[in-house]
Amino acid sequence: VSVASGTGPVRIACHQLAPVIGELETNRRLIGEAVADALRAGTDVLVLPELATSGYVFADTAEARGVSITPEHGFFAETAASLAGSRTVVVVGFAEDGGDVLHNSAAVIDASGILAVYRKTHLWDRETLVFTPGDRLPPVVDTVHGRIGVLVCYDLEFPEMPRLLALAGAELIAVPTNWPAGEHPEAERVAEVIAAQAAARTNGVFIACCDRSGVERGQEWNEATAIVDRFGWILAEAGRPSGATETARAEVLLHLARDKAISPRNDLLGDRRPGLYAQGGPVR
Amino acid sequence: VSVASGTGPVRIACHQLAPVIGELETNRRLIGEAVADALRAGTDVLVLPELATSGYVFADTAEARGVSITPEHGFFAETAASLAGSRTVVVVGFAEDGGDVLHNSAAVIDASGILAVYRKTHLWDRETLVFTPGDRLPPVVDTVHGRIGVLVCYDLEFPEMPRLLALAGAELIAVPTNWPAGEHPEAERVAEVIAAQAAARTNGVFIACCDRSGVERGQEWNEATAIVDRFGWILAEAGRPSGATETARAEVLLHLARDKAISPRNDLLGDRRPGLYAQGGPVR
Repeated sequence: VSVASGTGPVRIACHQLAPVIGELETNRRLIGEAVADALRAGTDVLVLPELATSGYVFADTAEARGVSITPEHGFFAETAASLAGSRTVVVVGFAEDGGDVLHNSAAVIDASGILAVYRKTHLWDRETLVFTPGDRLPPVVDTVHGRIGVLVCYDLEFPEMPRLLALAGAELIAVPTNWPAGEHPEAERVAEVIAAQAAARTNGVFIACCDRSGVERGQEWNEATAIVDRFGWILAEAGRPSGATETARAEVLLHLARDKAISPRNDLLGDRRPGLYAQGGPVR
Repeated sequence: VSVASGTGPVRIACHQLAPVIGELETNRRLIGEAVADALRAGTDVLVLPELATSGYVFADTAEARGVSITPEHGFFAETAASLAGSRTVVVVGFAEDGGDVLHNSAAVIDASGILAVYRKTHLWDRETLVFTPGDRLPPVVDTVHGRIGVLVCYDLEFPEMPRLLALAGAELIAVPTNWPAGEHPEAERVAEVIAAQAAARTNGVFIACCDRSGVERGQEWNEATAIVDRFGWILAEAGRPSGATETARAEVLLHLARDKAISPRNDLLGDRRPGLYAQGGPVR
């Protein structure tokens, strides 16, 4: 017995793995294993890290170009083929060969192939030396499981981005990420997860952030993969010990994110005051 | 030896008290005691709760009108007079008599009088039956201690609001609030504080939220007063036991909030993509 499309429980997994820089074939294998694992677990939506095909800490553009791929690359067809007969959707970060320039991109893939590609629009630090930021808003992809929006890492730190996705109807925001390890008070979550919690709550959406693990050229990561519910609470985490491959899993009623009522007289999106916000002065 | 105006340490206090509904004179006394306490402690910026002069759980508009005051009311002159000879700035919520309508407002006061009045623009639940939302953006007030923006309670849940204040130059956002008690997982902070943490971090501003205490007509409160630094970390809290008067205090270098650089190549506000955001479709 199958439930009606779009209202049943949706099984989300974030598979926190450790890509190897410059080693496309190794990373294809790691991703293939993660997909196989997701299929065995009956996962509906699998989120993988940012730049999962390529690694992150590039010395320069030339090195990144050597491992960048176009959406026509066999990796995508191979991934889609591995999903044949399933309804599983995969969101995965990759270094995109955009011709003259490279992009830090994420693809949404199901058994039929690539459903959407998003090019990260807010680049972090040395990424600006290697990649060109995208110039289009992130997609909201209609899937059998619900509407999935995509952001990549630092994008999530701009409240405008989850807001735009929620206004465009996203019920889940999938966030492939590589969060460089940052300091935080012992009793606190990492700051990026707090941002995700607030974004989920203020927009009434689910958010699935898949961080990476491992140490790459001395760079450590938060390894703070988290699935957040539409009220901002953490449903599942994959964390340390450092370098381990870990998967966070949660089963959610994604369609509930369509309901933005939070009191008898309040609606998260309906209570916005766009005319008021437009009174804001020019950006300094 | 006095430090240069605008670069020395700024002592912030949030005095979490329990207003009594409808009892203007009682509340004036409570506020007067809080101000006297702040002066004794050498406080530079004192934040008091939302609707501190009036209480919150009104039966109807008529009851609220009975305790609403205009900016010409003696309370404000009296408060300013009590600040004579000091550089202390007070931010306090009050029920404003706006003529035909009432507003849930906050005033910024120093020894010279009222510097600004802000009328809450996002009303929560039954507030919509009593108050009329403001139609103007919150002010950013230039004080000797730095630039202070003001929001009231539910306003802070709209990421547009702290963003607009940060873009307008706010270094500190003062948030008089009455947070109705909400459920949250045992190990988590209350959701509103998480929103404040994220807003502080994503905008690089300090945020001082002053909640209220007490039980009013059966309504309990989070009593989760918090002063948050520009990275989103909690500097001070005033919490339970329920009903107690407690003060959170922190000394901060407010002018550091002018610096939005967060990596050698990143700037919190400069990295925004206003042209991109404007591609967003019409509000649903």
